[in-house]
Amino acid sequence: MQSITSSSYAVHFNQRAYDALNTHLSEKTYSKIFILVDENTHTHCLPNFLAQVRGDYDFEIIEIESGEENKNIETCTGVWNALSELDGDRKSLVINLGGGVLTDLGGFVASTFKRGIDFINVPTTLLSMVDASVGGKTGVDLGPLKNQIGVINQPQMVLIITSFLQTLEERQLRSGFAEMLKHGLIQNKAYWEALKKVQDFIHIDDLIYDSVVIKNEVVLQDPTEQNLRKILNYGHTLGHAIESYFLESKTHKTLLHGEAIGIGMILEAYLSKELLGLPEEELKDIKSTFLSYYDKVVFSKENITTILSLLKFDKKNSHGNINFVLLSAIGTPEIDITIPDELYEGAFAYYADH
Amino acid sequence: MQSITSSSYAVHFNQRAYDALNTHLSEKTYSKIFILVDENTHTHCLPNFLAQVRGDYDFEIIEIESGEENKNIETCTGVWNALSELDGDRKSLVINLGGGVLTDLGGFVASTFKRGIDFINVPTTLLSMVDASVGGKTGVDLGPLKNQIGVINQPQMVLIITSFLQTLEERQLRSGFAEMLKHGLIQNKAYWEALKKVQDFIHIDDLIYDSVVIKNEVVLQDPTEQNLRKILNYGHTLGHAIESYFLESKTHKTLLHGEAIGIGMILEAYLSKELLGLPEEELKDIKSTFLSYYDKVVFSKENITTILSLLKFDKKNSHGNINFVLLSAIGTPEIDITIPDELYEGAFAYYADH
Repeated sequence: MQSITSSSYAVHFNQRAYDALNTHLSEKTYSKIFILVDENTHTHCLPNFLAQVRGDYDFEIIEIESGEENKNIETCTGVWNALSELDGDRKSLVINLGGGVLTDLGGFVASTFKRGIDFINVPTTLLSMVDASVGGKTGVDLGPLKNQIGVINQPQMVLIITSFLQTLEERQLRSGFAEMLKHGLIQNKAYWEALKKVQDFIHIDDLIYDSVVIKNEVVLQDPTEQNLRKILNYGHTLGHAIESYFLESKTHKTLLHGEAIGIGMILEAYLSKELLGLPEEELKDIKSTFLSYYDKVVFSKENITTILSLLKFDKKNSHGNINFVLLSAIGTPEIDITIPDELYEGAFAYYADH
Repeated sequence: MQSITSSSYAVHFNQRAYDALNTHLSEKTYSKIFILVDENTHTHCLPNFLAQVRGDYDFEIIEIESGEENKNIETCTGVWNALSELDGDRKSLVINLGGGVLTDLGGFVASTFKRGIDFINVPTTLLSMVDASVGGKTGVDLGPLKNQIGVINQPQMVLIITSFLQTLEERQLRSGFAEMLKHGLIQNKAYWEALKKVQDFIHIDDLIYDSVVIKNEVVLQDPTEQNLRKILNYGHTLGHAIESYFLESKTHKTLLHGEAIGIGMILEAYLSKELLGLPEEELKDIKSTFLSYYDKVVFSKENITTILSLLKFDKKNSHGNINFVLLSAIGTPEIDITIPDELYEGAFAYYADH
């Protein structure tokens, strides 16, 4: 597959990715190369990755614990200390080998270590391949509030090695697929229709490529999220609040990111119908498609109240308003929509309804 | 005094500073304005500052503890949480009212809160007026290692209100004066000669202005410290290690930044004579000038060993070498000089010698 050029760097795929990495490492003279992994990518991805690196480099491996609950400043402090103790300097490189939690956190750590050192992202989950791979967002959570602390900063390159998908559980793959469905909903109805046929999440290299192209076109037009880029938040306004709620809750199992924003996309499709006239049959199509991939979650009245209170912390808010991205049709988003409070109940009722 | 234009913003002085602030606040529609203070600026500077703001704004005051020992990620986390709890959003503004510790930390907090919000720096110490006011360096310490975590990011504007100097102790003023002396040593012998006559550190508005101009000219030519900007590190390579050592030491009193880099400048002047032929009389001039302003500190052999071991963590190092800025003459710096280990002892001996 061709490489995709983003703002200041490229996204390379599979063998071409390793070639690009080997060329980069031979051309730059990094003082030290750190590879950030979690316990999963340490075992399942790192050996294959290292086997493809040509040249005699002095790698230092830093392992963090996987999981959204570790995407915080404490973990950053551990990595900063490790970089410091292992003599990382301004000419060091950090390679982030992992899912979105790891690439977001590792990108932030590198962007702030000694006021910024080079980093390369190697996303190993479907979610991070299609979502975190372009756009330059880095950061960590603050308590239950997602991505509150971070910077926008670009990696040297992004390497998408689709064979890493074989190391993932089915549930992880399904979660990542939700972001691809979102790319169809906000940009391209034909792509949405193509995605609906997918049952095997491993052999979809061409569809992954299309998703990266869609996201890249959006972020290149609006790198700092003034306008157009906001469309990528479709499903995320309520989805993030739901994800935060489940992350904090002691009685519920944790929802994966894609599972939470999948619910968000159904709820926000309902709001789209009410406020922007999204056609009824497209609303039904969205609901039935997501429910064919993701189990329905039951929300009590108290759950919904708590989730709505978390909404107000969403980082995309300003001046106290909660701004949604909604759809006037599949493929046609509108930004900065304010929701009358009384509609939320209807949205959750529509989601729950059989 | 005229305003000084830096990369993307201006440094304004005294009444012109308040005028610029009032214009800025009336033109932008910030959702909320936070003022970050420490216990000193809260009492001694904030009332005067607020009295000069025209318009009815909803200020939120956030107080942190003063002191280098609080310039860390824990303090940042406290401020991030406060911003979040007080409904700070992407359209909020942070005004940093304090010395270099506060403006460095507050600039970092603002640059990373929700991936970056606007901030304005109002340096209240002589050190921060002439040093931290331009250049965009933000950040905090990591354990004993200074400024390991941070980003380069520019404020909306910098406001230098020289009447705030009247709130400072003599020792604080003297400390800040060391950076001004450095500006003379690295750029302008005439300015150095003018500074040597100063005994009153409060009524030196024109000299402060000159220092900001010198620093600004340097950082504009090399914003990311590839080459020229390194000259600003004169005295800081050994000075930072000495400052770190005293900060950590349980038996020594803490040295102020200017006191530590003053020692660093004498030590590095000795190295300059040995390696670059700095004239003997200029070396003597540098030593006697600094010792006329700053008490001599006694270093034991063990002290020196520990200080030299801290050197290797200096963030400006790369590939394991320790790179110094030295002087071939007053006003003529050279960068990237490596020091033979055996010279350090001589430097400390020269400093100690009567």
